[in-house]
Amino acid sequence: MNINRNYLNLKDSYLFSLIAKKVNEYKAENPEKEIIRLGIGDVTLPLVPAVVDAMHNAVSEMGNARTFRGYGEEQGYDFLRRAICDYYAKKGVDLNENEVFISDGAKSDLGNILDIFDINNKVIIPDPVYPVYVDTNIMAGREITFINGNIQNDFLPLPDETVEGDIVYICSPNNPTGAVYTKEQLKLWVDWALERDAVILFDSAYEIFIQDSDLPSSIYQIPGAKKCAIEFCSLSKTAGFTGTRCGYTIVPHELIRDNTPLNKLWLRRQTTKFNGVPYIVQRGAEAVFSEKGLMQVKENISYYLENARIMTETLKELDIWFTGGRNSPYIWLKCPNNMSSWEFFDVLLKDYNVVGTPGAGFGENGEGFFRLSAFGNKDDVIKAMDRLRNMQF
Amino acid sequence: MNINRNYLNLKDSYLFSLIAKKVNEYKAENPEKEIIRLGIGDVTLPLVPAVVDAMHNAVSEMGNARTFRGYGEEQGYDFLRRAICDYYAKKGVDLNENEVFISDGAKSDLGNILDIFDINNKVIIPDPVYPVYVDTNIMAGREITFINGNIQNDFLPLPDETVEGDIVYICSPNNPTGAVYTKEQLKLWVDWALERDAVILFDSAYEIFIQDSDLPSSIYQIPGAKKCAIEFCSLSKTAGFTGTRCGYTIVPHELIRDNTPLNKLWLRRQTTKFNGVPYIVQRGAEAVFSEKGLMQVKENISYYLENARIMTETLKELDIWFTGGRNSPYIWLKCPNNMSSWEFFDVLLKDYNVVGTPGAGFGENGEGFFRLSAFGNKDDVIKAMDRLRNMQF
Repeated sequence: MNINRNYLNLKDSYLFSLIAKKVNEYKAENPEKEIIRLGIGDVTLPLVPAVVDAMHNAVSEMGNARTFRGYGEEQGYDFLRRAICDYYAKKGVDLNENEVFISDGAKSDLGNILDIFDINNKVIIPDPVYPVYVDTNIMAGREITFINGNIQNDFLPLPDETVEGDIVYICSPNNPTGAVYTKEQLKLWVDWALERDAVILFDSAYEIFIQDSDLPSSIYQIPGAKKCAIEFCSLSKTAGFTGTRCGYTIVPHELIRDNTPLNKLWLRRQTTKFNGVPYIVQRGAEAVFSEKGLMQVKENISYYLENARIMTETLKELDIWFTGGRNSPYIWLKCPNNMSSWEFFDVLLKDYNVVGTPGAGFGENGEGFFRLSAFGNKDDVIKAMDRLRNMQF
Repeated sequence: MNINRNYLNLKDSYLFSLIAKKVNEYKAENPEKEIIRLGIGDVTLPLVPAVVDAMHNAVSEMGNARTFRGYGEEQGYDFLRRAICDYYAKKGVDLNENEVFISDGAKSDLGNILDIFDINNKVIIPDPVYPVYVDTNIMAGREITFINGNIQNDFLPLPDETVEGDIVYICSPNNPTGAVYTKEQLKLWVDWALERDAVILFDSAYEIFIQDSDLPSSIYQIPGAKKCAIEFCSLSKTAGFTGTRCGYTIVPHELIRDNTPLNKLWLRRQTTKFNGVPYIVQRGAEAVFSEKGLMQVKENISYYLENARIMTETLKELDIWFTGGRNSPYIWLKCPNNMSSWEFFDVLLKDYNVVGTPGAGFGENGEGFFRLSAFGNKDDVIKAMDRLRNMQF
């Protein structure tokens, strides 16, 4: 009996526990200080009324023998897959219902999708990055090549002749940097993948934050992408579902590797190792995509984007380099005075009582950078920026 | 780019689709006949009032900024893990809260748990069996040895000196056979595993059906089991959660392999590749374990067990060999007149308009056997048994 020894190669992540420790220590020593948290990657606004109403109705249905639902299809109810197809149709993307798989979130699917690929595939991951891409591949023992995001490329790495691999992760709008690929940039990745029979794992969890209509909010807006990309999305940030759990993954029928449709493999994976999302939650998710629901969730998105605007205005005044914050809830800034991520964290915490997230927690290229998030309360954001406006370097 | 070619070794399961096809054909030809379904593996009674009330409250909380919940801990809320520990305490099993992991169901966890084990571990699976055990191991490319359930051992295979392996699956009360291991029998498996440093994956999804207090409803009622067993349970059958999705997996701290606590590995797996169960569902699950909730779900269990009793009485009258049906919702019978599973299926469908599940769908040793389920409506069960009582062989 041996364990999966790849797990022993994982580095423990102390990012958020170290942040919590530092904040708690500071609070214990300075109980009178009001600390404002701009590091949160979680939403704070409650579920919108359309979703709450739909879930109340579904709970009642589940308590009534005539309307009770047992097992649903693992890949999700037709009503929700249909609603998602309609949502994509508005983006100019034509999907078939059985190309859409409902899941309990993008994090699960981004990890689980690796099941369907050979263990010897080479994986390309941008740095800085959402740590789950890296850890799930280490767990499987796959070889990882990092590609660099940096100020020179606006944290939007692009393929060149040196980039070789079978699977590449792209997240746009990006977590942690908030950077968004243009259609032209994304096309370079699609063409790169098509040339090599590679697969793009496209994480679009923040697509609803895109306001500029020229920017792609689905990789399938790029010609050829259905032949090379799987798209992962989630209602976590779209509709405040971080604690309600619903996402979806799109595996186009045209995506064939090794003479095998990946849609068929993923269906087999999900029907064997997953049992679907709660009926109640699927009804809530359906309501997100209703006319009323979309209007309500977009109001929340506007609220968060206004927070982001307030923060970016301050950064401009302070002449601090940043990306993100316009089509994304995240702002990625260069720490002033060449401070390291953690040095800047300490300064912000101790001198201004503001908490953010050190970029070093997202990979080597994150060192010297810092993430602010727009998911807080507007009054707090204004107060925090008033403090920072007086920042002395 | 290659796919995971182990997937190509999977056999397509036509069991339930073939049943549906045969039933639909018969109905089309005989629209006037009333067909009674005793093959369902899904529950039919609605969620109990305690659960419905708790979920309504939770939905309202999620719609209010003051009580809204975002991300919870991946392994589940304390309130639910505490409730499960209390439930186990009543069985005489002392668990620590962080030995309990909340999940979206036993099916997911039974597949995902394989992530933490080396790919070269040898797996032992009883036949007949819940097909998910087999398929998840084929997907990972693991070597499987089958052990035989048959009339001689009452479909409760036990280890002997010829049985060697690293991981063994045990499901008791069993799906599909309804057979239940005694404490003495289960102790043979625990001792076998301890001698070899093997791990038992114990599926207790039907534990609530156990009425005989001498029978084990958790493997941890067997001394030494915490050093060799992981237990998987689900509220699907306990509380009608097949469409509501909540289960739990217990990984004791004492369970160490390769000098590594498996609890730590599973925590890492879940925090990296899972994002927890909806808050609303966890509140519903908590209510299952309340005094009122347990009373209400046990009423439903009694209803199903009464269906099982009616069926077993009829089988006794007909002098048909069977197991299960006393501490289990499933009855596993030997097809009369040495009919094959599908021959008997056809006879039941066409001559008596009763639908069940051919045992051959659960493995080679299932050939010649047949599964009936107690999850139907009582009046239908009585009607079906009245028809069978006149069965002519």
